[in-house]
Amino acid sequence: MHAPDGDPLLRQVLRGVNGSDERLNEVVSSLITHLHAFVADVRPTEHEWLAGLAFLAETGQRWCGPHRDEFILLSDMLGLTTAVDDVNHSGPETMTPSSVQGPFHSPAPPRELGDWIAHGPERERATPAVVHGRVLDCDGAPVPGAVVDVWQANDTGLYDSQDDTQEPGNLRALLTAGPDGGYWFRTVRPASYPVPTDGTAGRLLKAIGRHPMRPAHVHVQVTAPGYRPLTTHVFLAGDPYLDSDAAFAVKPELIRRPVRRESPDDLRRWEMDGPFEEIEFDLRMVPLGWAEERP
Amino acid sequence: MHAPDGDPLLRQVLRGVNGSDERLNEVVSSLITHLHAFVADVRPTEHEWLAGLAFLAETGQRWCGPHRDEFILLSDMLGLTTAVDDVNHSGPETMTPSSVQGPFHSPAPPRELGDWIAHGPERERATPAVVHGRVLDCDGAPVPGAVVDVWQANDTGLYDSQDDTQEPGNLRALLTAGPDGGYWFRTVRPASYPVPTDGTAGRLLKAIGRHPMRPAHVHVQVTAPGYRPLTTHVFLAGDPYLDSDAAFAVKPELIRRPVRRESPDDLRRWEMDGPFEEIEFDLRMVPLGWAEERP
Repeated sequence: MHAPDGDPLLRQVLRGVNGSDERLNEVVSSLITHLHAFVADVRPTEHEWLAGLAFLAETGQRWCGPHRDEFILLSDMLGLTTAVDDVNHSGPETMTPSSVQGPFHSPAPPRELGDWIAHGPERERATPAVVHGRVLDCDGAPVPGAVVDVWQANDTGLYDSQDDTQEPGNLRALLTAGPDGGYWFRTVRPASYPVPTDGTAGRLLKAIGRHPMRPAHVHVQVTAPGYRPLTTHVFLAGDPYLDSDAAFAVKPELIRRPVRRESPDDLRRWEMDGPFEEIEFDLRMVPLGWAEERP
Repeated sequence: MHAPDGDPLLRQVLRGVNGSDERLNEVVSSLITHLHAFVADVRPTEHEWLAGLAFLAETGQRWCGPHRDEFILLSDMLGLTTAVDDVNHSGPETMTPSSVQGPFHSPAPPRELGDWIAHGPERERATPAVVHGRVLDCDGAPVPGAVVDVWQANDTGLYDSQDDTQEPGNLRALLTAGPDGGYWFRTVRPASYPVPTDGTAGRLLKAIGRHPMRPAHVHVQVTAPGYRPLTTHVFLAGDPYLDSDAAFAVKPELIRRPVRRESPDDLRRWEMDGPFEEIEFDLRMVPLGWAEERP
């Protein structure tokens, strides 16, 4: 790294950071230091630098608004959202790792345990699935009454907000875990999907030779009094994009293999009327006040 | 610096950079590395991170357009424009250092050597000044016929494009140096002025406790066949903002002390009819092909 001591300009810029908010001073000083190091490393031409600034201006002007935020998307695409998620969610080894929230969360309709959450045309054509598990603490004790918020894309990779064939609230649910911490719902298998590629983030992905796909997943957010809220995904084993998620949100602990079920016992147990996939995903929450060890 | 080897996430993000443009791969990889190091250093909360991304979105959405570019302003305010300028303009010790172009350049009217360039009300109220010098190479030999493009604010710190009392082209000139490389023009002393503070850059400056002022200066851009174009400023000694230029564009070699002149000889020599300030500023150009030594 570019040592401030060796660079009179950087030293002068850093001397100017003297606001009343110490945390802001710290953040801005670090950002200044890293951006000057970036300039020293790549020695951009003026044309390159202006092209970079124009990319940022276009990102804000054309691709940010009430229904889109391309800077968040860029943060996701560069692994920065996951990096920020990681520094904020360390915990015991037994916890369920956190993963990024993404842009598709919205208030979900409260539903009963076991309810169908797929009510659009995907219900007729897609692979039926049962998702279930238990909300536990990191020692394996149940967390009864935990609130489990789930949302997912359908079999064409679209969320309700992107798809005229889905009613608002489709493939979303707010569930309350039972006395044993258990939760379950009936749904369809989600498909992998591309992040938006029409904006500057898509242009960047293409330029650096990356595809825009996210592997199939169900989003889960779980809250319970006395526990740190947990936002995560469950990913489906076998997905071709698990190793190259455009948002770098996959962690090995979050991958589950859907198991095909068709026996009469399974159909009866999960109230299904034909073959389906079972996806089991326990959620292990971290108690509030868990003492984080920072290296 | 955050070592890629120690960070599996960063390693994975960097592995994804594989476009056909090697230079773009290099720039993007370096940016990713430095931004991940920034996250590791400051450990932003999710709230802080989203606030930073919202700042960028607002910068593009509200403060960039045909007549304004707040990302360029931010680059100036963080010393990055000067850093980029510096990596692109190293040269012999005797050269005139480069300095940032800023946002106020526009095509200037061709004028004759010695012409008045102040034609607005500032001509009646401001301190008259004569700016002169010679365009030379780094060994001191004249560069006859060099084209010298100058632009400046008036005594209230406003450029023609910001001020209804000035005609377009006021306080601007395109001059051709004489056979001895000499150039001169009659004008008024410029005033220091604030950069725009109504946008996100102004908000940032205030938050980190910095004023928005730029010390008084005249912009100069000089071109001549066989020489590297030179864009720079001449600053006026004694200005209270020389040590704290909001744009970090001041270099000691660019500061000149205006000298008050009122003798009949001086008035006759410079065709002035009353006391004025003389500002002498030679411009030493670097020949094309000068072998830059990179450390």
